[in-house]
Amino acid sequence: MPAKLEPRVLKGFRDYLPAVMLPKQGMLDRVAEVFQSFGFAPLQTPALEYSDLLLGKYGDEGNKLLYRFHDNGDRDVALRYDLTVPLARVIGMNKGLALPFKRYQIAPVWRAENPARGRFREFVQCDIDIVGSNNPMADAECMAVGAAVLEALGVERFVLRVNNRKLLTALMNRLQISDGEPQLAVLRTLDKLPKIGKDAVTKLLHTENSLNDEQCDAIFAFLALKPEELEAWCAGDPVGELGARELNQVLSLLEAQGLRGKVELDLSIARGLDYYTGTIYETFLLDLESIGSVMSGGRYDTLIGMFGGEGIPAVGISLGVDRLFSALTELGLVREQPSPTQVLVTVFDAEHISQSYAIANGLRKAGIKAEVYLGEDKLKKQLKYADRYSIPYVVVQGPDECEAGEVTFKVLAKGEQSRISVEGLAVHVSNLIKG
Amino acid sequence: MPAKLEPRVLKGFRDYLPAVMLPKQGMLDRVAEVFQSFGFAPLQTPALEYSDLLLGKYGDEGNKLLYRFHDNGDRDVALRYDLTVPLARVIGMNKGLALPFKRYQIAPVWRAENPARGRFREFVQCDIDIVGSNNPMADAECMAVGAAVLEALGVERFVLRVNNRKLLTALMNRLQISDGEPQLAVLRTLDKLPKIGKDAVTKLLHTENSLNDEQCDAIFAFLALKPEELEAWCAGDPVGELGARELNQVLSLLEAQGLRGKVELDLSIARGLDYYTGTIYETFLLDLESIGSVMSGGRYDTLIGMFGGEGIPAVGISLGVDRLFSALTELGLVREQPSPTQVLVTVFDAEHISQSYAIANGLRKAGIKAEVYLGEDKLKKQLKYADRYSIPYVVVQGPDECEAGEVTFKVLAKGEQSRISVEGLAVHVSNLIKG
Repeated sequence: MPAKLEPRVLKGFRDYLPAVMLPKQGMLDRVAEVFQSFGFAPLQTPALEYSDLLLGKYGDEGNKLLYRFHDNGDRDVALRYDLTVPLARVIGMNKGLALPFKRYQIAPVWRAENPARGRFREFVQCDIDIVGSNNPMADAECMAVGAAVLEALGVERFVLRVNNRKLLTALMNRLQISDGEPQLAVLRTLDKLPKIGKDAVTKLLHTENSLNDEQCDAIFAFLALKPEELEAWCAGDPVGELGARELNQVLSLLEAQGLRGKVELDLSIARGLDYYTGTIYETFLLDLESIGSVMSGGRYDTLIGMFGGEGIPAVGISLGVDRLFSALTELGLVREQPSPTQVLVTVFDAEHISQSYAIANGLRKAGIKAEVYLGEDKLKKQLKYADRYSIPYVVVQGPDECEAGEVTFKVLAKGEQSRISVEGLAVHVSNLIKG
Repeated sequence: MPAKLEPRVLKGFRDYLPAVMLPKQGMLDRVAEVFQSFGFAPLQTPALEYSDLLLGKYGDEGNKLLYRFHDNGDRDVALRYDLTVPLARVIGMNKGLALPFKRYQIAPVWRAENPARGRFREFVQCDIDIVGSNNPMADAECMAVGAAVLEALGVERFVLRVNNRKLLTALMNRLQISDGEPQLAVLRTLDKLPKIGKDAVTKLLHTENSLNDEQCDAIFAFLALKPEELEAWCAGDPVGELGARELNQVLSLLEAQGLRGKVELDLSIARGLDYYTGTIYETFLLDLESIGSVMSGGRYDTLIGMFGGEGIPAVGISLGVDRLFSALTELGLVREQPSPTQVLVTVFDAEHISQSYAIANGLRKAGIKAEVYLGEDKLKKQLKYADRYSIPYVVVQGPDECEAGEVTFKVLAKGEQSRISVEGLAVHVSNLIKG
């Protein structure tokens, strides 16, 4: 007989056991509900794509991180690296889609990263995008969806920090920093401001980006501008003027939705990716800023047309699912839960089993998650099962209770029990759950 | 400039555009709700596993169908082929899990099959399993969940056909058909009975399985047995007697749940897989039997312990997601729907935009999916967008309506419109949606 194999998981991959997956799935379900409530529809694309469609879309570094192989038919294939290139492919293949096209996708992606704390080789991305609208209303809508998601998850204190890439381009041009990599390098340094502070950033701007004192001063003067000062600052630079106008339009559209208090201008928000072309934003939880941005995105008007030949404007926002879930856990808004069951209906003996089933069915009809214990074990063992799975309520119905049309209802955490009529049970439990 | 790449999808893979994904996701959400209402909790496992854990679990044919490759660290890895072996791995790695462990998983699997009509290389599996209980209550519960799923999806006329593998083993032994492949081959032939009928099966039993007339007669006599005749038929054969007892227990437990009318004994149900050890079942829609079984499963008491060293009993049911979705479509229980939006709120002009936002927000608060049109285009263009996305209701609010605290409410399919007060709008729409 062959030796038993050691069961194990690949490095950088992980199982989500029910205790974590249950609240995480609950979070994702609420997120999807909010997406749909704004008219975003789900799209699903394959995990595997032709490699040539993905190669070169994420830079040299990204190419190296692809899970790429030859399939049984010798096709050069790769696991998707993100959800944006597949979206561009779908747009390229379905010219008949009515625009604007509002879709969401919640799905795993794979990157052969060096695993580190909080960095995995398989992780879920959660994106909404509006394809085919260059109206600032689309930018504002993505931000409003982000705010609605956080509210739906019970987070009250958060801020969306918004900027516009065109303003940063105007700044770079004014400082005579060259296009392309030198500009992106400065943006990546600026992106560190919330994490490492002004002094450290100034140092990096000198050492890494070879800027002089005057350039650094100009940068920090720019960062201190208020929304209403932007147009004047940009005067004469058409790109900057357009950026200032776009930004102010987005702010006033958010004002019109009653969200102005949740949004602030932050001219240091840079997003180190080279494909953003306009609005960019990050989202911070005020009670847990150190965790970093939990949602970010922006406008990228050149990427989506990559398979189509023409430019198609697009704007989106992406949730950091794992980070957001960690934050909700730390804030006490979700908790581990090994079972969805709210009520365990115990089994007295074979003769009374149909009563147990009837009680559980009645609870389910009232929207309560109920399970019947699988066996006729001693009550003590049945209660232990409820305890192991943190099932809050237990119903016991023996011959006595049966005759009286009642049950014994136990609240395990409090060690309390009481007699309740069978007919009143569902309402009683519903009230306990709500309360 | 490099030539544009042709956007394309791998053979055997497919995109689900929103029109199909929206109702399909809706179906899966309801299915998951039913699973949870019976106390099943979600589990998530990685798409990639070490190849050695998967190899040899699905026979030679399965080995060939694995998407297997070496990753960047030269590990021999493969995309998961099903959700059962990963479950066994999780059980093997987490000895502390309280049993019985009730989990569901809804996730894609990959098989390098020759694509054919209705057969894809990536498809979603949807499984529940109860690990660690050998009580027939667990078998009956899986079947009850299957029935509850169909009821939740609006299917009223269906039947669960149940059998027990031990009875088939007793039959094979009585007919002196050898263990292993010869027995499995006969079972595969019997499995074809609903599709090809008695005469064709008889012919195959002669030609493919080399049975004689007497053996065939014995088989069809067995198939005609009633539940209450089984124990007598098995008398003296301990395996058969156990199977008969298990089967009758499951039937009486389903009776106790009021499900006896949805279940029938079908001794020809064989399930061609070699790992079933007890109860087996298939589910047919009475108004669409030709589509085949939409859910099936059974008890497999030896598989789950494969990574643990000891036997762990298990029973489960698996939904054929694609087949069930096709069936619901054919039965008119789901329909294509390109957008979740129920109400499009149009935009009159920049000045009135905050009213549009307020109306949409009010609708969302009432649980209605509402979107604000992204721009200030002519009303005709806004209505065309609603039409393209099959959005049923449109709200128009110009200066007139504003002043009166009203909106113009359009029902696009009927070409009707009426004036409604802003405060009454959400209730009006809710009633239309319910009605």
